[in-house]
Amino acid sequence: MYDGLKGFRDFYPGEQSARREVTDAIENAASRYGFREIATPALERTQMYVDKSGEEIVEELYAFEDKGGRGVALTPELTPTVARMVVAKGQELSKPIKWTSTRPFWRYEQVQQGRFREFYQTNIDIFGSSAPEADAEVLAVAADALTSLGLTGDDFEFRVSHRDVLGGLVRALAADPDAVDTAAAIRAVDKRVKVDDGEYHGLLSDAGLDRDTAREFDDLITSVETVDDLDAVAEAGGEDVEAAVENLRNVLAAADDFGAGEFCEVSLTTARGLDYYTGVVFECFDSTGEVSRSVFGGGRYDDLIESFGGQPTPAVGVAPGHATLKLLCQRAGVWPDEALSTDYYVLSVGDTRSEAAALARDLRALGDDVVVEQDVSDRSFGAQLGYADSINAETVVVVGERDLENGEYTVKDMERGDETTVPVDEFPPESGRPTYEDYE
Amino acid sequence: MYDGLKGFRDFYPGEQSARREVTDAIENAASRYGFREIATPALERTQMYVDKSGEEIVEELYAFEDKGGRGVALTPELTPTVARMVVAKGQELSKPIKWTSTRPFWRYEQVQQGRFREFYQTNIDIFGSSAPEADAEVLAVAADALTSLGLTGDDFEFRVSHRDVLGGLVRALAADPDAVDTAAAIRAVDKRVKVDDGEYHGLLSDAGLDRDTAREFDDLITSVETVDDLDAVAEAGGEDVEAAVENLRNVLAAADDFGAGEFCEVSLTTARGLDYYTGVVFECFDSTGEVSRSVFGGGRYDDLIESFGGQPTPAVGVAPGHATLKLLCQRAGVWPDEALSTDYYVLSVGDTRSEAAALARDLRALGDDVVVEQDVSDRSFGAQLGYADSINAETVVVVGERDLENGEYTVKDMERGDETTVPVDEFPPESGRPTYEDYE
Repeated sequence: MYDGLKGFRDFYPGEQSARREVTDAIENAASRYGFREIATPALERTQMYVDKSGEEIVEELYAFEDKGGRGVALTPELTPTVARMVVAKGQELSKPIKWTSTRPFWRYEQVQQGRFREFYQTNIDIFGSSAPEADAEVLAVAADALTSLGLTGDDFEFRVSHRDVLGGLVRALAADPDAVDTAAAIRAVDKRVKVDDGEYHGLLSDAGLDRDTAREFDDLITSVETVDDLDAVAEAGGEDVEAAVENLRNVLAAADDFGAGEFCEVSLTTARGLDYYTGVVFECFDSTGEVSRSVFGGGRYDDLIESFGGQPTPAVGVAPGHATLKLLCQRAGVWPDEALSTDYYVLSVGDTRSEAAALARDLRALGDDVVVEQDVSDRSFGAQLGYADSINAETVVVVGERDLENGEYTVKDMERGDETTVPVDEFPPESGRPTYEDYE
Repeated sequence: MYDGLKGFRDFYPGEQSARREVTDAIENAASRYGFREIATPALERTQMYVDKSGEEIVEELYAFEDKGGRGVALTPELTPTVARMVVAKGQELSKPIKWTSTRPFWRYEQVQQGRFREFYQTNIDIFGSSAPEADAEVLAVAADALTSLGLTGDDFEFRVSHRDVLGGLVRALAADPDAVDTAAAIRAVDKRVKVDDGEYHGLLSDAGLDRDTAREFDDLITSVETVDDLDAVAEAGGEDVEAAVENLRNVLAAADDFGAGEFCEVSLTTARGLDYYTGVVFECFDSTGEVSRSVFGGGRYDDLIESFGGQPTPAVGVAPGHATLKLLCQRAGVWPDEALSTDYYVLSVGDTRSEAAALARDLRALGDDVVVEQDVSDRSFGAQLGYADSINAETVVVVGERDLENGEYTVKDMERGDETTVPVDEFPPESGRPTYEDYE
C-alpha cells in the first residue's frame, strides 16, 4: 500500500463534485465578462522565478534539474508564466488582454488548515489597461464569482489599498527618504496582523523608519476607515500620495458603477506580500472574522511585463485560491452538497441486456446532462438495486423478461419506494425527464 | 524574455477554447454513463512507479528528491494513482467504482508530432467488475465521446485484442512453454508495426520463440480479421486460449448491445505496451490511416489493485490522449473552430460609465452563457469599436450622452454594420437575447 505525499490531496467523487461546482461558478463569472481561458505548463525555468523574486524563492519551490540539465521548477504561481506569454506574442495580441485559467500550483511550505503544497487557484487578469475601470472590473468579477456561490455582502469584504499611498507615505514621513527601503516597509505592513507589535515595529525599523516615524505612519494608515479619511493621508503624503489617493478613489468609484462597491472598503493596512504589485491592491476577508486569514487577493502589477522584456504593459489581476475559499463557503453554509446524483438506473433482469442497453441509450438522449447507469457486473436484482441506491439513483427502470413479454417496464421511485408499470412504447416519451410521478 | 520548456505548451485563448470544447465533450460522455470525476496529485513517490514498471522507468520520469528527501516524480500516467486511491479506501467504496478525470501528465521523451513532454489525457476506469459488460461500457463511452465530436464510423475504429489469447498462443505453440517470456512476446507484438520485420522477429526470438514458432504465431494472429476467424486460433491454442477467445467474443457481443459494435474489429496484432494489462485490450486508430499512430488505447488490468496491496479488484479503462485526438479531429475536419465569440460589447461614449455598466450587468443576467464586455481602458469610440471587432462581438450597444438624453441606445450589428436606436426601457427585453434584427 502506497501513501500520497504530505500536502497533496486525492479528491474522491463527492468532494470533487463540490469543487467542480465551485470552479465552474468562478470560471463562469470570468467568462461572462469576456475573460478567455488559457492553459499553461506545470514546469518553467527556475531562473525566471529567481530573477523575479531573488535566490531565496528557490527554498519554497519544487525545483530540480531535468534530464537535459535544465534548472526547472513546478510553477508556484501563474503571474510569471502569463507575463512570459504576453511578452512572447508582443503586439499580436489586441489590448486589453483578458485571460483566466484554473490550475494547481506547488510550493514546498508548512501544511496547515487551508494551505497545501499542491493548491488550486483561478487566475483572472487584464493586461494593457492602466485605467481604474480595469481594477474595478477585476473586483466586480471576483464579487460576482462569490455571490454566484451564494455568498453575500455579510459574508465577505474586499479590503482595498494602494501601494503608492503606502510607499509615498513612508518616503514623505521619513527624515531621509533615500535611506528608506519602501518595499521592506510595505512587506512590514503586510505582516502587521500576522506578527506581534514588537516584531512589526522591528520590521519597520529594519526598513529604515525611526521609532517616531513608524508610529506616525502606523497611526495614519490605521486611521483610515472610509474614503473621506483619505484626505488626511493625502495631506500628510504630498504630491505622489495625492495622485495615488486619487487613483484609489477612482477605482472605488468605478467599482461602485460596476456593482462591486458594496463589497469594498478602504484599508491601508492591507499591502500584499509580493514585491511586484504597484498600484491598487486588495484582499478578500471573511466579514465575520471566523476565517482569520485572507481568503485571496489581487492587485496591479504594472512593471512586470516590462521587466520580462516586453513593452510597458500595465496589468491587474486576482486569484481566488480554492482551499481558503472552501473555508469561507463552509463557514457561510454555502459549500455545495457533496452527494452524487444519478437520474436513471436501468436494471436488467434475465436475458434483457440488449433491451436494457437500448433503453439506457434512449434515456441518455433526453439531454446532455442526463446521467444513466446500467449493470456492468452481471449482478442479481437485489445487488443492482443496492448499487442504484448507493449512487442515489432517482428512478430505477426494471427491464425484466416477463415485463417485456407484456410490453412493459417497471418504473420505480427510489425515494418513495413506489413503482408502476409503463408500456414500452411510451417510455421514454419524446421529451422531458420521465419519473414515477408521471405514471402513478 | 524567457522561453517555455521544450515539449511544454502555452495555450492561448483561441486554441484553448477548442481544447475546452473537446475536453467537455469527452467528460460529458463519461458523465452521462455515471463516471464520477476525481482529482489527483501531480507528484507521487517515485518508488510506486519503480515497483510497478522496474528501475528503467525512471529514465523517462521527471523524478527528483524533494526538500524533505523524498524521491518524487511528476505523474507519467494516472493508473498507479487511482490504484493507490482504490486501495486506500478499500471496502468503503461501493462497486463498481466508475471514475474519470482530465489532467496533464509528464514524461521526459522525444518530442514529435502529437507527442509532448506535458500531455493531457482523460482517464475513464471501472473497478470491481470482471464482467464483459464493463469492457463493453468502456468501449461505448469512448465511442460516444468520439461521435459527440462529430467523428463517425468512417473516421475511427477500435482494434480489439486479448492479452490471454496472445499469451496463451505463445505458450501453446512453444516447444517449451516455461522457456518463453510471454510478456516480452506481447511487447514484440505491440512493436510489430513500429519496427521492421527483422527486428520484430528478433524480439520474438529474444522472447524465446524459435524461428518456425514465431512464423506460425505471426501467421495465426494476422489471419484473424473477423470474430469467426477466432475459431482457428482457439483450436491452435488449447483450453486457456479458448477461454480467452470466449471472453473476447462476449465483450464484442456486449459492445454490440451497448451500441459500440460498429466501431469494433478484432485485431490480434494489437497488444498494448504496458505490462499491467491482463485481458481485453484495444487501440483506437484513424480508419483512413492518415494518422498512422494509435490515437489512444485501453484495456483490462485485473491484477494491479492487488499488487498495490488491495483486495483482488478487476479493472478496465481507457484514456483518450488529447494531442493525438486533435490530429484525428483535424484530419476528419471536425476540430472545433478556434475563434472567440462575444455576445455584446457595451460601448460607453462621454460620461455614461454608470449607465453602460448597469446595462452590461442586465445583459449578463439574460443567461449564464451570455458574454458581455465593456470598456476598461477609457478609450475613444473608434478604439472601442476596433476592440469589439477584435473579440468578434456580435452586437454592440452604444451608450452615448445624447442618445441617453433621448432615452435611447444605439444597437449595432457588427456583421452587417447596420444600426438602429432602441428605447432604453425596452432594452434588454425581459427574456431572450436581443440583437439588431429584433429592432430593424
